[in-house]
Amino acid sequence: MEPQRRPGGRSARVREAVLDATTDELAERGYQGLSMDAVAQRAGVHKTTVYRRWRAPEGLVADALERASEQPWPIPDTGTLTGDLRGLTELLRLGFTDPESGSVATAFIAAGMQHPEAAEALRGFYAARHGEAAVIVTRAIVRGEVDPLVDATEIIRLAVAPLFHRLFITHEPVTAEQARRAADVAAALARTTIGT
Amino acid sequence: MEPQRRPGGRSARVREAVLDATTDELAERGYQGLSMDAVAQRAGVHKTTVYRRWRAPEGLVADALERASEQPWPIPDTGTLTGDLRGLTELLRLGFTDPESGSVATAFIAAGMQHPEAAEALRGFYAARHGEAAVIVTRAIVRGEVDPLVDATEIIRLAVAPLFHRLFITHEPVTAEQARRAADVAAALARTTIGT
Repeated sequence: MEPQRRPGGRSARVREAVLDATTDELAERGYQGLSMDAVAQRAGVHKTTVYRRWRAPEGLVADALERASEQPWPIPDTGTLTGDLRGLTELLRLGFTDPESGSVATAFIAAGMQHPEAAEALRGFYAARHGEAAVIVTRAIVRGEVDPLVDATEIIRLAVAPLFHRLFITHEPVTAEQARRAADVAAALARTTIGT
Repeated sequence: MEPQRRPGGRSARVREAVLDATTDELAERGYQGLSMDAVAQRAGVHKTTVYRRWRAPEGLVADALERASEQPWPIPDTGTLTGDLRGLTELLRLGFTDPESGSVATAFIAAGMQHPEAAEALRGFYAARHGEAAVIVTRAIVRGEVDPLVDATEIIRLAVAPLFHRLFITHEPVTAEQARRAADVAAALARTTIGT
């Protein structure tokens, strides 16, 4: 399902209101508690509009993820590969630790485990994020820190995978030290080109 | 909730039947489709027994995970660190690719995202698994392949985290080549002691 959009028009304003409400509801209640009616009420939109355009909670999640993937985020730019990757993993750690953004991100991931449409949206969201974060590695290549043959997105994946693994698979907390270590491991691999 | 147990007695037999039925139901219907009544019927046990002892679907999942963590599994023993880690990541990849075992494992992870009791059980399950797999690294230490200061379970985590990240966060397939590369990266790190 591809929602109709007229940028800047009423349809775009309705989408913004509904996706803002979706995000707020996910922050408060998680994915299990996401109700189309509650989203409609919170957005001040008639519920038939929400059902017609987004069909089901996973449709709201997928569209919220699509919007999120278009929004800018502060990619670290510290001047070194290690500094940038440490910035990236710490950003991720703090994002998941924050009660509000952490709940929303967790809800997105939970939705991806339950519905193919949300899984597909997550795949697109992370493809965009990894593509953007790859600039961390390409900058290091330009500086001569890293071999040009290194697979940039693979280094980004290596830096972040241990955090997701702890948070969502083994259900262990992630400390600042662990986030730093994951970044350092990825940086070391990039420098030795093992990661290619 | 700690189910009462009399090893080998009627209670133990009921537990086996109920957890076998739970596993079969998870394989067929996933966690969202897990019903206490269907488990009771499949196990040939009165449903009040199932409700009294396991209380809710997440109780069944937690106990199934506890049983799974006690079961032996084929830890690779090839004679080299790289060979063993490749065996481990390939075992994991095949396990998640297999329709039956993959569905059950996915259901466990989905349950962990939705209920603290299942999350706690997953934490215990993976602590046991990582502890057992650490022998791969300690054998390499004994062979002189790896520095004794290397954190063995950390190397195991590094080998497996990229697979879980693809399967459950970014929803991308895991190829045999990617599983092998994740193992090789962890082995290289163990040898350079960056992983400590």
